[in-house]
Amino acid sequence: MINELDFLRQLLPELHSSSAGLRIGPGDDCAAVVPTPGQETLAAADQLIAGIHFTYDTPPQLAGAKLMNRNLSDIAAMGGRPRWALLTIAANGWSSDWLLEFCRGVIAAGRRYDTELIGGDLAALPETGMAASLSIIGEAPSGQAVRRYGARPGDGLYVTGRIGNSFSSGRHLTFTPRLREGSRLRYCASAMLDISDGLLLDARRLAAASGVNLAIDLNSIPLHDDAVAPAAWSDGEDYELLFTAPGNPASHWPADLAPITKIGCVTTGCGILTDLNGNPLIMEKSGYEH
Amino acid sequence: MINELDFLRQLLPELHSSSAGLRIGPGDDCAAVVPTPGQETLAAADQLIAGIHFTYDTPPQLAGAKLMNRNLSDIAAMGGRPRWALLTIAANGWSSDWLLEFCRGVIAAGRRYDTELIGGDLAALPETGMAASLSIIGEAPSGQAVRRYGARPGDGLYVTGRIGNSFSSGRHLTFTPRLREGSRLRYCASAMLDISDGLLLDARRLAAASGVNLAIDLNSIPLHDDAVAPAAWSDGEDYELLFTAPGNPASHWPADLAPITKIGCVTTGCGILTDLNGNPLIMEKSGYEH
Repeated sequence: MINELDFLRQLLPELHSSSAGLRIGPGDDCAAVVPTPGQETLAAADQLIAGIHFTYDTPPQLAGAKLMNRNLSDIAAMGGRPRWALLTIAANGWSSDWLLEFCRGVIAAGRRYDTELIGGDLAALPETGMAASLSIIGEAPSGQAVRRYGARPGDGLYVTGRIGNSFSSGRHLTFTPRLREGSRLRYCASAMLDISDGLLLDARRLAAASGVNLAIDLNSIPLHDDAVAPAAWSDGEDYELLFTAPGNPASHWPADLAPITKIGCVTTGCGILTDLNGNPLIMEKSGYEH
Repeated sequence: MINELDFLRQLLPELHSSSAGLRIGPGDDCAAVVPTPGQETLAAADQLIAGIHFTYDTPPQLAGAKLMNRNLSDIAAMGGRPRWALLTIAANGWSSDWLLEFCRGVIAAGRRYDTELIGGDLAALPETGMAASLSIIGEAPSGQAVRRYGARPGDGLYVTGRIGNSFSSGRHLTFTPRLREGSRLRYCASAMLDISDGLLLDARRLAAASGVNLAIDLNSIPLHDDAVAPAAWSDGEDYELLFTAPGNPASHWPADLAPITKIGCVTTGCGILTDLNGNPLIMEKSGYEH
């Protein structure tokens, strides 16, 4: 069994005990951070389970980076800026070295976006396994975080980057969270989310939250070279942003950001997906429901 | 396997989508909350593992309450006020009904202290088991959260309530987080933490963090009627507050709070525990190191 105290003795010196906005760093009962005036606080939590979200031969640093990056993707989907993270791990049968490298992957991925690990917990599972949970705390200008509802008929439907075949290709371990794109979209997106469970399933969620239909041109959905439709529309783990916006957000889109592609438009309705003629899209499997 | 969407369909209506300070409630990529001006944000995370932190026959509402309450105890140990929580669950072989009741236990325990669940995640484990993780977000007046370091020679050493035999007696499931006591101690404690891993082990942590020795009168440690020394000093799961303070904090202590007992004093040193004569306390087992 891993000794939490020994583990922390190794890990704590690698964490920042002070950085901008951090008043009390890791090692106390709570961390204390100073909220930025004029900002609201964003918070979300997501998990990474060995044998489910990564295979047993995955390098620990990549697994750790994935856990951080899927949480960063949730901040991106609000148009926010990530700041802090809390990590808990429950494990049995995993070496202390593996778990340390996993934590280092989490920490390094966060620092790429000025996000510091400020607390956490390590506990034993009674049976073999490993479940990690990360909570992310971010900020956005007060009242300006982008929600899933807000899509209006007439808005265009867009996606960043390309999608499909993320798990088999290994991209689920190496994707770039769309934080820079999300920050920019805060000024023009009417509704936004990140594609974690498959484009079509997440599109349905956006439609339902906004109380509109989404008319989608399936052939315009940008796919990775190794991805094949129709599976790619539902593969999941893409971590691209799906959003609606009025006007033409692509017209002044910076060249150094992931490209955005228009794949449809918002129509009046009550939360279903249609083709461009308004006929309901019917799919056997629209996404990864877990 | 439990379907996360079905599960959320049942649970989401029981969560508050709006309450004071909550701008975006559960169901979006992130929740958004409004920090209180003049307050710093406290954050911590803790876990509850089936078969480790509760036995398999524990009523799910009690297990859920325990997870919330141990996080509330961390906020209490800073002298803070809890506000928000994020909950993740990884499970296999646990019924949807059990997990719903577990969540209800978490939610109800939080609401006793105006703490709302604002987000989370449910995932499958590949093997049988259940691990839950909760992150708590609280607030304290800027710069006033009480740390573990700060104890000064001459301060008294105190504990709230009584300790010992928490797990066998079932008190680990029903304890009251010392939030009211912690709030009051914010005005006088020089160092504070909550006793989760055993009084002597946690006292050693406070001594090490503060760079002092703690001289303890072991016979003055207040024990529950069913607790027996010396085991009680190291049993853990007490969730009482251990703190140091100058002067005599007991002299004006409100009668409606848990009583506080002086169990020793702070002396110069480098982080060890002694008896009142300054001789090092030597224990075979000083606490639950997990």
